[in-house]
This record gives sequence, C-alpha cells and structure tokens, in this order.
Amino acid sequence: MFEVRDVDLAGRIGKLYTRHGVVETPAFFPVIDPARQEVELEAVREAGIGQVITNAYLLYKRTGGAPVSIHEYLGWKGPVMTDSGAYQILEYGGVDVTQDEIVEYQARIGSDIAVILDVPTGDVDRRRAEASVEETLRRAREASRLITKSPETIWVLPIQGGRFLDLVERSAREAGRLPGYSMYGIGSPTVFLDRYQYDVVVDIVYTAKRLLPAGRPVHLFGAGHPLIIPFVVALGVDTFDSASYILYARDGRYITEYGVYRIEDLDYFPCDCPVCRRYTPKDLLEMSKEERTRLLAIHNLHVISRTVRRVKQAIKEGRLWELLEEVARRHPAAQAAFRRFRKYHRYLELHTPMSKGRIRGLRAYGFESLWNPKLTRLQARALARVGPPRGPRRAVLVRLSKAGSCPQDSDDTHYAIYDYYVGVFPSALCGVYPTIHVDYGGVDPLVAKHLDDAVTAYVHRLRERGYKEVEVRGAPWHLARRLARLRRSLYGVEISVDGEGVGGKTGDYM
Amino acid sequence: MFEVRDVDLAGRIGKLYTRHGVVETPAFFPVIDPARQEVELEAVREAGIGQVITNAYLLYKRTGGAPVSIHEYLGWKGPVMTDSGAYQILEYGGVDVTQDEIVEYQARIGSDIAVILDVPTGDVDRRRAEASVEETLRRAREASRLITKSPETIWVLPIQGGRFLDLVERSAREAGRLPGYSMYGIGSPTVFLDRYQYDVVVDIVYTAKRLLPAGRPVHLFGAGHPLIIPFVVALGVDTFDSASYILYARDGRYITEYGVYRIEDLDYFPCDCPVCRRYTPKDLLEMSKEERTRLLAIHNLHVISRTVRRVKQAIKEGRLWELLEEVARRHPAAQAAFRRFRKYHRYLELHTPMSKGRIRGLRAYGFESLWNPKLTRLQARALARVGPPRGPRRAVLVRLSKAGSCPQDSDDTHYAIYDYYVGVFPSALCGVYPTIHVDYGGVDPLVAKHLDDAVTAYVHRLRERGYKEVEVRGAPWHLARRLARLRRSLYGVEISVDGEGVGGKTGDYM
Repeated sequence: MFEVRDVDLAGRIGKLYTRHGVVETPAFFPVIDPARQEVELEAVREAGIGQVITNAYLLYKRTGGAPVSIHEYLGWKGPVMTDSGAYQILEYGGVDVTQDEIVEYQARIGSDIAVILDVPTGDVDRRRAEASVEETLRRAREASRLITKSPETIWVLPIQGGRFLDLVERSAREAGRLPGYSMYGIGSPTVFLDRYQYDVVVDIVYTAKRLLPAGRPVHLFGAGHPLIIPFVVALGVDTFDSASYILYARDGRYITEYGVYRIEDLDYFPCDCPVCRRYTPKDLLEMSKEERTRLLAIHNLHVISRTVRRVKQAIKEGRLWELLEEVARRHPAAQAAFRRFRKYHRYLELHTPMSKGRIRGLRAYGFESLWNPKLTRLQARALARVGPPRGPRRAVLVRLSKAGSCPQDSDDTHYAIYDYYVGVFPSALCGVYPTIHVDYGGVDPLVAKHLDDAVTAYVHRLRERGYKEVEVRGAPWHLARRLARLRRSLYGVEISVDGEGVGGKTGDYM
Repeated sequence: MFEVRDVDLAGRIGKLYTRHGVVETPAFFPVIDPARQEVELEAVREAGIGQVITNAYLLYKRTGGAPVSIHEYLGWKGPVMTDSGAYQILEYGGVDVTQDEIVEYQARIGSDIAVILDVPTGDVDRRRAEASVEETLRRAREASRLITKSPETIWVLPIQGGRFLDLVERSAREAGRLPGYSMYGIGSPTVFLDRYQYDVVVDIVYTAKRLLPAGRPVHLFGAGHPLIIPFVVALGVDTFDSASYILYARDGRYITEYGVYRIEDLDYFPCDCPVCRRYTPKDLLEMSKEERTRLLAIHNLHVISRTVRRVKQAIKEGRLWELLEEVARRHPAAQAAFRRFRKYHRYLELHTPMSKGRIRGLRAYGFESLWNPKLTRLQARALARVGPPRGPRRAVLVRLSKAGSCPQDSDDTHYAIYDYYVGVFPSALCGVYPTIHVDYGGVDPLVAKHLDDAVTAYVHRLRERGYKEVEVRGAPWHLARRLARLRRSLYGVEISVDGEGVGGKTGDYM
C-alpha cells in the first residue's frame, strides 16, 4: 500500500496506492469544499496536484447522509481523502453525528483515505489536552473493529497532544499498537502554524514520527505553507492538507516561498504561474473580489505545488539539509524551526542514506552546516569507529587538497586529513562520502573553532593510542594558535606545526 | 535620460529613457543573434523581457556594412542595445573594422544603446591587462568627438582592468572624466562568472561603481546567472546582458535560482513557466535537440526574468540585504560573493535609505545579518553620534521588550535598550528604524558575542561620560558572565546585573 522509493534525512519519496490511483508522496491535499468552490478543480489539476481532501461531515449534513459517490459528487477521478469533522469540533466544539455513523459514511461514499472521528487538541491547557488524547484513543480502539469491514479504504488514526510532547508521545506509542490502521495523522498544528510558531510544530512532528511505525505513511493536518513544508517533510511527513490557499486568497493574500503578502504590498510578481504571467498586482487589485480570490487561489496552489517538487528534487539529490539551510534564511519562523533540527540530528542521521548513486558535492555555508547529518556521522566515524590505527608512533595531519588526494599510511606514520566542516579523518577514510566532497565559499569563526576542536580531539585520541609525535601541516592561523596552547598543556606527545599558521597576519577567516 | 525611482543598499530601480521606449532597471538584456535564433523573439517578450542586445560587428560583417535599421532587421520594436565586437576581440583576438566604422555604424542602424570598440581584459597577466585599459581609454577619448554627432544614442564607455583592481580604479576614474558618455559598462566578468568566482566579480563591480558618477546607469557585460544578479544589482549595476540562457540550453542545461542542472539530473521541474508546466524533464530528454534547446532557452529566460522581479520587489521593500542572505545559502559561490559585502558595508550604508514609507520588520538570521547596513548604521549612531547624555550618574540597561516600549530618561537616570542584532541604543532613539523592528528566530554564539561586545562598549562610553553606576536588567547568561569579568577589570564605575543571567543553566543560545 505504501512504498518508499527514495530517502534523505527522515524525508522520503513514496508511492501510496489507493483505489483511485497512486499518490506520489510527499503530497499536498488541498481542502475542497464543494458548496463553496471558488476555484474549478481543473485548476487544481493544472497546478500539478493529483489528490484532494474534503470534509465528510459537511457532506453528511448537506446530503442528509445520502450514500453519494464522493468522486462523482466532487467530479474528481483521482484519490480523495475525507476528514471526519474534527475541524468542526475544534472550531465549534462538537458535531452531531456518532463516530459509527461518520466512519461508515466515509466507507460508503468511497473515500480513498478516511479519518476516524478524533478530538483535536488545539492550543488548550494540559487537562483538556489529556482528555482529547484519551478520547481520541478510546474512539480509535472502538473504530478499530468497524474499519476492518472496509479494508479498501486507508484508515488514518490521528495523533493528538498539541504542545504537550509527553502526551504526543503517549498518543503515538498507543496508536502504533492499534490494529486496522495503515496510516497516521498528526493533529492540529494549525493554531501554531497560524502564529508562525514553527518550532512548536517541528517538536510535535518529531515526537510523533519518532515513535510511529517507520514504514507507514504519516499525514499532517492543516499544513500547507511553503515555509513549513520542507521541514515537516524532512522529519518524515508524507502527506499534508490545507485550506490556506483559498483562505489566504479570500483575504487578498499572495503566498510566496518566503512568506505571505497582502496583494497591495506587491509591486512585482516573482512567479511564472499562469496568473502571475498574465496579470500584475495592480490588475488583481482592480478586479472584483470574486475574480481576485479565484486567481490568488490558483497562484497559491501553484506555489505550494512547486515547493513540493523542489523538496522532492532535493531528496533525490540528497540535498534536503542544504535546502533547509536556505529556507531557514527566508523567514525568522523558518529559522526557529530549523534550529530545532540540531537537537534531532541523531534521528536524522539514522535515516539519512550514506550517499546516493551519483555523488554530488555537499554544500556547507556556516554554523548550521555543522549539524548536517552527513557531516556529524562522518565525524563520529572518523574519531570513534575508525580512528587512528595502533602501531605507528608518528602522525601527520595534512590539510585536504583541492584535488581531494590523500597521502597513505606507512608502517611508521599515520596520515590524517583535516578541513573545515569535515573536521579530521584518518586517510583510510579518504574518498568515503563526504570526506572529499564538501564545497564551501568561506567559513565563519564558529566553523573555524569547530575545526580547532576536531583537531584537538584527534590529537587526544592519538595520544591515547600511543602516538608520540604529531605534525600538523598547512594549519590556518587560528588552528596554529590553538595547537600552540595545546602543546603547552598536553604531555606525552610532541606537537609540531609547520610555519606560523596560514593567513595569520590578517586574522581573517578565509 | 536616467531616473532613479527607488533605492536599497546601492541597488536601485530606475527608468532609462531610449528612443524606443523606457527600460525599467535593473534590466536584463538577452543576447540575440539574428543569424542563429533558436528562440522566437515573441518568447523573449512573453518572459517579461522588454529589451535585447545584439552584436553590431557581426551584423556589419553579414550585411557588408549596409545601413539597415536594427529594429526592423531584428523585428523588435523595443529598446535595442548593440555591442561593438569586443566579445570577438576576447575570443578571436581582433576584429577587422576600425573604431570609427563600428561607432558610426551603430549610430546609423539606430541602436538605442551602443558601445565603443573597447578591448576587453579577460583573465590575463598584468601587462596585458594594463594594455587593454590604456587602449580602451585611448579609443574612448578618440570616440568622444564622434559620438557627440549621434546624441540620440546612449553611448556606453566600458571599464576594463579585470582582476587587477587598481587598473579597474584607474579605468573608472578616467572614464568618469571623459565627455559624451552617459552610461558605463563593466567589462569582461564572464571568465570569472564561468568559473563561479563570484567574489572576484563583486570586487571588480564594487571598485568600478564606487568611482563612477553615481547618477549614471552602469551596465555589466556578460552577466545573466540568477545567483550573481542580486549581488551585482545590490552594488549598483543597472543593466546586464548575457547569452547564457541560450548557451546553457544548447548544452542541455536548465537554470534555476540556485544553480544550473544538466537536464538528465532533474527528476522534477521546480518551476511554473510555460515549459515546466507542460513538460517533464523526461519529455525534454526524448525530444530532438533543436526542440529541447528552444524549450530550455525559454525556461532559462523565465528564471532570469523572475529573478530580476524578485530583486526589484526586495528593493521596494528595503529587504535587499535579507534577500542576499538567502541567496548566499543557495550556492558556495554566492556565499563567497556575499562575504565580500562585509568589506563594503560602509559603501552600502551610504546608499541605503534610513527606512521606506511603510516600515517592515528587519529580519536577522545570524552572523551575516550583523553587517546589514541598517544595523551597522544604527550602532554607529547609537554609540558615537547620539550616545548616553551627560548629566545623569546612573544608567539602566534593559532588554528590549516584545512590545517595543522603552522607559524614558529621568534627570538622574539614563535608560538604554539592548537586544541581539541591534546592540545597545539610548532610549531617546527608541522607535527610530530599526531599533524596535528586528525579527529573529534565534541567535548563534557569534551574535551573542556581538551583543556582549556592544554592551561592553556602551559601558565604557558611560564611564567616559562620568557615569558611576550601571545596572543591567534581564541579561542572558553569556552577557551576565561577560559583565562579571568587566566588573573585575573596570574601575570608576559600579556594574550590577540582576539575577544570575537568564538561561544560565542550559548554556544554550535562545
């Protein structure tokens, strides 16, 4: 039902098989309201979006529970996901159908992916959050029997808990044990997304994803902003839905990859979608609200859709971390989200493949690049798992050459290679990705300090393994200075540095 | 002939009036070769590009010097710029027309913007670079008389010198003095652009721009890569031309805002231009080379065009520096380019307006944000030009509140406000842009150190002005630690810090 085709960080490209076709994940499901559809579905498809979500509860109310075919009713042949009315609970405090009714109804109308009647947490106090988690789990257990009757529908079990991460944890652990569910949903981040508290969303998603069965698809409810999509996909979210494209449009707002604009604040459209190629911001302002809403919604769908394509391309290239570094410079909220990733680098390391078929240079830009899981893993391997061989008493540390060639160990001399970002690695690892594959356009003082720390740690390791002499060649000025201090404090090993340190006169970094 | 409408950093939005219409700058001129035009000019216009450049020397050769109308010959009604054959000199070592011939020819065919027959420097040794500068200047003096006969053409004087910045300087100083020229061109960065040596290009452009008359438009020859455009515009380049869109296309390459792909390395098109909406990378691979070249060129034109629009929008918003921070995370070469900007921040400060009509939050992301000219200027002003008032003996430093409100000075107490990125400012400046307008999603250790340094400098300043007591409220742990050290070493002023420093237990940054 779900196949993972490609992976980077904890993000993945997969295929989710439904009765009405395959959803290539990560995938965005725009929220469609057939009773108030300002945008024709053809425009959704033209934006490159092959699947939609609609609210089964509203449909139930409108049709009096008549067993329509959801695909015919919408006029959409591709995969359709239905939500159960949870949003109405969150907004209006309750719905007037039973869980059995709405679960059976979703199966009857032929929903491809359906959700049980969960109780969203939202942003509430702990007691109410606890109650929403327990009630959702109770209903999930209750529905567990019912949903086995319609196995052709993919049933989604929502994870609740909101900002209380221990509750999210409890919810995810328990959910992973319940039979019948082949997909999970992470509930109610919308309130945090609306306030640009992306770091909270990252914490919730990480907490849930880490505990859910890794092979199953995970949905994130209510997320459709280009600034958050790369982060949640990198944590392992496979599908997500949102009405933001139309809600923003109704409010005269234009989504970009780097934030949302009021249309009157734009002088130029930095986009080539059919709307932006044809109209100027001024044109849109002069239209009727109805027409403007429609065109803004179409643009908004395009920008979300191409954001997903760029994320997928980055996964294919193994450059998702680098994309996150870029996105983190588009908005302070995105940077706050990215900062949480440092805490989670072990989880990401675990899922990140060593390298892809075609090796591409790893691009490093500064402080944040040091947490790139491909680099953190290399350092763990270089220092702890491989490390300097026992035997030689002499080690030579040389700066990585531009050609990427490394001197080989001899019986009496061990060679290690160092450079910014990669730190130090034994020459035996030379060529292993990404030892000689890092491209950078400069370093900042923190990256310089990171190198100094890495060399210091390696010298300590050499000493533990019985080395008596360490020679460091081509050291930049800050490293030479650090080694001079180390020489004074470290006994049992003789440290020599050639020259006075490169670039010492300027004191500048690269 | 040239009007500046809006400014940010040294970049500007302007209007360049030609006989065939107005060019809104910054503007990209795609190189058109009528003898080998794989892309119809209609596609150029559809990509939102209103002006083109073509080679007058090649036209001269092909037509035997016949006095065609360039606009009719090309079938282009908008502004046409012509180059003189300089590219042929660079590539093949010489041309077989005289300067008089090619200058008169350009006037005769009705070129809107024309270039004298300069000698491009390229990447050569110093002696040859010197010769190219002197010969270009000699020809410029010689042509000076000739071009006054055709004042309806805008005459461009190219600046040469290549990587020898003192030669660029000489070239620019001398050029600024020659009569008859109303526009300047910066020559031959192409060789450095091709090698992704963007930092060299930045140095050349800065050196020339700083010395050229500020009110006149400046062209950059051979630049058309989305990664370099934001940087050269930020330095004050108004127009630029390139054939890269078609050269890359012939080579099966697809330009993005973050680098160039071979089409076979792409799985998804992260773009909504007419080509990318209609085809997949696979479709393009399966086409004839001719058709693929045409479609790739059309895509490439779109991405360059929308890059220019995004840069213009950033100038309008006063967020060009923030855009550069983002672009610097797209490619190591872009970062290398951006690093040069730190050196040039005084030049940028000079040209950056204090604020725009509608105040938008200044977004800060880390180390590089500290060089945002709006912040460097604030600090200079806060510390040196305004500073603490003489009179009170007691100063209180308070952390900027989220609401942006500041306590007022009383007779015996001076209040100063501090925060990351803005450093410290006297409460009298409170509200002045960007004191209370900085948004950030976290800080790194270098930004923390910057705050510590700023507070230390302010305390020194207070002491110089006779203050005896300094109280610091709400200090984060690193600042509290720094102040404890300062207290031990600084005599004559009593420093108190409330609490033990915020967040001291974790030692983390924000």
